[in-house]
Amino acid sequence: MYRNVKNVPYYIFGKGSLAQLDDLLRERRHEEGEGVVFFIDHFFYGKDLVASLPVEQGDRVIYVDATHEPTTDYMDVLAAKVREANSSPLSCMVALGGGSVMDACKAVANLMTNPGLAEDYQGWELVKNPPVYKIAVPTLAGTGSECSRTCVLSNVKKRLKLGMNSDYTVFDQVIMDPELTRSVPRDQFFYTGMDTYMHCFETLTGSYRNRIVDALAEKAVAMCEDIFLSDDMMDEVNLEKMMIASYLGGMATGYVGVVHPFSAGLSVALHMRHGIANCYALTVLEDIYPEQHAQFMRMLERQQVHLPGGICRRLSAEDYDILYEGAIVHENSLSNRLGPDFKQILSKQNVIERFKRM
Amino acid sequence: MYRNVKNVPYYIFGKGSLAQLDDLLRERRHEEGEGVVFFIDHFFYGKDLVASLPVEQGDRVIYVDATHEPTTDYMDVLAAKVREANSSPLSCMVALGGGSVMDACKAVANLMTNPGLAEDYQGWELVKNPPVYKIAVPTLAGTGSECSRTCVLSNVKKRLKLGMNSDYTVFDQVIMDPELTRSVPRDQFFYTGMDTYMHCFETLTGSYRNRIVDALAEKAVAMCEDIFLSDDMMDEVNLEKMMIASYLGGMATGYVGVVHPFSAGLSVALHMRHGIANCYALTVLEDIYPEQHAQFMRMLERQQVHLPGGICRRLSAEDYDILYEGAIVHENSLSNRLGPDFKQILSKQNVIERFKRM
Repeated sequence: MYRNVKNVPYYIFGKGSLAQLDDLLRERRHEEGEGVVFFIDHFFYGKDLVASLPVEQGDRVIYVDATHEPTTDYMDVLAAKVREANSSPLSCMVALGGGSVMDACKAVANLMTNPGLAEDYQGWELVKNPPVYKIAVPTLAGTGSECSRTCVLSNVKKRLKLGMNSDYTVFDQVIMDPELTRSVPRDQFFYTGMDTYMHCFETLTGSYRNRIVDALAEKAVAMCEDIFLSDDMMDEVNLEKMMIASYLGGMATGYVGVVHPFSAGLSVALHMRHGIANCYALTVLEDIYPEQHAQFMRMLERQQVHLPGGICRRLSAEDYDILYEGAIVHENSLSNRLGPDFKQILSKQNVIERFKRM
Repeated sequence: MYRNVKNVPYYIFGKGSLAQLDDLLRERRHEEGEGVVFFIDHFFYGKDLVASLPVEQGDRVIYVDATHEPTTDYMDVLAAKVREANSSPLSCMVALGGGSVMDACKAVANLMTNPGLAEDYQGWELVKNPPVYKIAVPTLAGTGSECSRTCVLSNVKKRLKLGMNSDYTVFDQVIMDPELTRSVPRDQFFYTGMDTYMHCFETLTGSYRNRIVDALAEKAVAMCEDIFLSDDMMDEVNLEKMMIASYLGGMATGYVGVVHPFSAGLSVALHMRHGIANCYALTVLEDIYPEQHAQFMRMLERQQVHLPGGICRRLSAEDYDILYEGAIVHENSLSNRLGPDFKQILSKQNVIERFKRM
């Protein structure tokens, strides 16, 4: 049995294409009283971008705090906010932001039509009812959230990072306007772009493979290398290319490898964001991914991006345990690269020493 | 204004995935009496493949004659056949075949819910009502019909080759089972695969560009070069790769260049099939596409595919006029590669001399 893969049904790509959001919403505004809810990265609070959005009477703007990765608790808070503001059904939800904001929109759209709490849907195929129609407008490129079938949520109580994996989680429409990524701080542009690079090369160097995923991942990796080894990763052409690489990479969802488990450890123990955590992870995996490690170091240097050292020094023994557990729990990913005996390389001591080197 | 691009909503990819058609149809068989219509390439008549299909009581198998490219008249005949056999609404249509069969299924699915004749819908955005749900099972790789928004139809009276360009024309589901292409005659596998190669390199060498189309086309071209410059274009890996290249190439719908107009001339004047006509076209465009021409000649040789010469010798003056007109009418494509003054190179004499060299 092969998976029946759901694509994002519609996308618009091009500089300035955000202007077409108004027309798309107009098609959805069927009934009076059915509003649109905008989830907007709090980074844009008070900025011109928000004033330019087609917000109408009865719509609601909700700023999403993307300082940390989305938690299940926060999704429940956001869902309550949306319910409170809208007694009648919503016609549409719009996410304007990076991976966290898009993931929040996906999770809350599911919760609007499915009872219970966010954590009830962490897993595979648990969403039962079609969610609210939703549109993604990424303002950061690299997470692939705009076209993936999951939304990554941290469950703090259960120390679990797991999405609502479901075809229902896929956006109905994506608007890819590269212009929106122009104002991203350079470091953040780099870390987020690297998310595509890493999950794609991890897939390509694993043992569980799928040739269509390979084709998409190969192209995404090649585009990332072009972008991040060029003189300026944020010139006009590269802003476009990075948005496309993210989209292709998001469609190339396969098994990951060793970067993502180490990255997950950092997110669980230190609440570090996914993109930068991936970068730290790769810096200590030179023996496991020699080529990609070397390539990554060249990219860091070429783009003059700084990764401050010493982030895992002088932690408590308990913290190191959490780091180790947060990484080693991802057995499928680790064995995808290293085989079932991955603990022969990744002993507890070995793992903790790697974290200490970061 | 950028186009809102419709993707094929669902695809299954993998060797043997045809076996999953039964489950997919089961989900569609809602009401008693609502049958499934299978459009099957007449090439498969009496073959084991047909016996293995999940055809149930009330379903109908229609063999589609794919000897020539689909005509609007033939679509009207097929539509009448389907209507005659099914008084109640259809639950699904399935296309099992190459580009012609898939295009026929797309056209007839539109005609089932839209009044009038096939020729009424040749053009852009003319289909008004949602068509019958349809599933593509390509048995040839390269046309990209499995994921494109058109179905190419020849209108014999009007001497016009034009599809029903519409989001409604897109299949709802694609099953890509590379195993189905194993029994394709080698020459045909080559000609059809070249369709992807040619429309993608034409797009990439044109002046109207779109960076997301470029990314998909670049990958499809690279995969075609891998396949057709390898020792055996039809080994197991290449059967998979060609099906993926066709899918990516089908999503990379951009403007074409000079190959397609010359190919169209051959189709109009000599009823030649699209794939092989493209091949003949490129053989006489060495000045316009020097690199791709050389690459193509290497591929022909490597795969030992024969392209018999002299196909346009000793035709009547009227025939040469038809060839010329059939090519030169495609002004957008020709100027995409050669600029608005394309007739400075492609004078009537120049065009006819090229045809004579084929």
